[in-house]
Amino acid sequence: MDYDKLALDLHKQFKGKITTKLRDESELDRTKLSAYYTPGVAAVSKAIADDHSLLPIYTWTNNLVAVISDGSAVLGLGNIGPEGSMPVMEGKALLFKHFAGLDAVPITLNVHTADEIVATVKAIAPSFGAINLEDIAAPLCFEIEERLKEELSIPVFHDDQHGTAIVTLAGLINSMRITGKNLKDCKVVTIGAGAAGTAIMKLLHKYGVGSIVAVDSRGIISDMRDDLNDEKKALLPYLDTSLSGSLEDAVREADIFIGVSKPGLLTEDMVRTMAKDPIIFALSNPTPEIMPDYAKAAGAAIIATGRSDFPNQINNAIAFPGIFRGALDNGVRKITDDHKIAAAEAIAALVDTPTADEIIPSVFDERLVPAIAAVIR
Amino acid sequence: MDYDKLALDLHKQFKGKITTKLRDESELDRTKLSAYYTPGVAAVSKAIADDHSLLPIYTWTNNLVAVISDGSAVLGLGNIGPEGSMPVMEGKALLFKHFAGLDAVPITLNVHTADEIVATVKAIAPSFGAINLEDIAAPLCFEIEERLKEELSIPVFHDDQHGTAIVTLAGLINSMRITGKNLKDCKVVTIGAGAAGTAIMKLLHKYGVGSIVAVDSRGIISDMRDDLNDEKKALLPYLDTSLSGSLEDAVREADIFIGVSKPGLLTEDMVRTMAKDPIIFALSNPTPEIMPDYAKAAGAAIIATGRSDFPNQINNAIAFPGIFRGALDNGVRKITDDHKIAAAEAIAALVDTPTADEIIPSVFDERLVPAIAAVIR
Repeated sequence: MDYDKLALDLHKQFKGKITTKLRDESELDRTKLSAYYTPGVAAVSKAIADDHSLLPIYTWTNNLVAVISDGSAVLGLGNIGPEGSMPVMEGKALLFKHFAGLDAVPITLNVHTADEIVATVKAIAPSFGAINLEDIAAPLCFEIEERLKEELSIPVFHDDQHGTAIVTLAGLINSMRITGKNLKDCKVVTIGAGAAGTAIMKLLHKYGVGSIVAVDSRGIISDMRDDLNDEKKALLPYLDTSLSGSLEDAVREADIFIGVSKPGLLTEDMVRTMAKDPIIFALSNPTPEIMPDYAKAAGAAIIATGRSDFPNQINNAIAFPGIFRGALDNGVRKITDDHKIAAAEAIAALVDTPTADEIIPSVFDERLVPAIAAVIR
Repeated sequence: MDYDKLALDLHKQFKGKITTKLRDESELDRTKLSAYYTPGVAAVSKAIADDHSLLPIYTWTNNLVAVISDGSAVLGLGNIGPEGSMPVMEGKALLFKHFAGLDAVPITLNVHTADEIVATVKAIAPSFGAINLEDIAAPLCFEIEERLKEELSIPVFHDDQHGTAIVTLAGLINSMRITGKNLKDCKVVTIGAGAAGTAIMKLLHKYGVGSIVAVDSRGIISDMRDDLNDEKKALLPYLDTSLSGSLEDAVREADIFIGVSKPGLLTEDMVRTMAKDPIIFALSNPTPEIMPDYAKAAGAAIIATGRSDFPNQINNAIAFPGIFRGALDNGVRKITDDHKIAAAEAIAALVDTPTADEIIPSVFDERLVPAIAAVIR
């Protein structure tokens, strides 16, 4: 399938992906115009000015997410700037509407420092019910999300971090049901310490996973290394730092491999050295750390990727629509680690009998949004 | 009609006024999802990153206006802040959709200095096709609009200034057709030097009106006054400063009175001292500078107000939908004075035979948007 051509054709044909319409679809006569705009609207404005808690009662903010990016880490394209990132952010708005009925507005930013991005998002925050940060490069994304969560009273969620982490945890929970392993006893190896990798490590640590060994291009991350930058130093409290050596050393006897790094880093020989029934989440996109066929041939019990053309797609879109639906409907102001774990468990529970080819529900499963939303409260 | 109650009820019933929907309303299957989002969308992003002029070809920015306010001068309510202003901005978005088919997103700002507002709007500008500034207090609104027009490559239009000025000029053009006067020979008296008043004076000056006398609470504005603030000093080049004295002195023998100030300032006695067939635009809202019945009783040939329950409503909504429709459709990057005058003439021309009770078309006249859009090029 030539998705490139289809994408260019469809985007041109429809001139974009989203549009607005009026909530009240009845005839807009002079009387209604005088209620929706002047003079009637003044009473609504005055009521909200006197009591800000009425904002979501009387305006579309009750159902509204801002999808915000500076275009600095867009898909596999890297730093392509605000203009280039717009189709992705508008696409995310399409997903919000399609999967969760949420109104979402793509906001692409022409500023790129943490201070500027935080200042801009704070300035426009009263316009929205929640903030979805998207495709902002690590490590800036960590500081930006932390500061905004601290300073705003609406939910702020960097989907590249937490969406991926939630769906990964959901997939791992069901992998345990298949293999009979216990996640808290598993040895997990991760490679890739960007937005997604970092969030996965932190969420697994919070979940109680026994051993998380992280690997970067220079080998296993530990306090014995003297070449760690600040972001990697900050990861140390979440990691098992008893090992040193290469990726090859790290995966030996490991139960679970999670890659959010580069194509082809995991070899069949390495898989063969892992513990019994190895579980491989090769999430590098579009080309995984190891192709599913090779992983299976080398004995993998379960293989998940980021791709829709293989089974077990670890897809953010499984999680974020329900997360935001729940946060807005239930008046949740901060998405906590407990929310993320509850969401992962809710996702996992939707698969009655997990198999090696079905560890997570399809993104099209209509039970997803209500099931997740129900635990975000 | 109790518009307050109707407004509160309708806003609550529909939970706001606008919502989003997908442009492509056909079934969104896995193939389309892969074209509108990953992996296909990457080709669209890459194309735009390489050539920014493709942004309006492939994204909704081609049809998209940001309605931006800091809530500092909302209707007659004054500085009610970003939350309080949201219903008005969302209402404006409703008008954009209803009258011109334009997508508009209300953005209410939690910052209030010129530097902060300019920085924020510049930061989010790549997300939009045009910027409608709204309900920002004078004199800050002048600086903000000027700087944004200078620094952005998309249209920026402060509707409180120019929308009102355009519709006022349209009404005056048709008032000339009724009274047989020539606008360029008329003596015009204005009272009120806020956003709308200032823009009206400047546009009438540009149009070639012979004499514009401005009055403030201390009397006629002239270079003989030593109490003028910077904004009023900046108006002097547009004014006839040959007179001095009170409003009473100013209106004597005047052809046209334009008030954008306070209720009841113009008395019947003053109207009686005006030139033959006086034209009164008493635009203070909701209570005009003189009520229409009183103005007529005192001999006014034509009376216009800002209200929908009297004839001749000077309503911004007559102008701005067509202005933005034209700017976006015709790729216009700056709305100039020539555009504003052309728009006023196009509005005026839609009334075949103006009468004292019909100097401008109804806001519901479906010829308005195409007629105005055609001259914004």
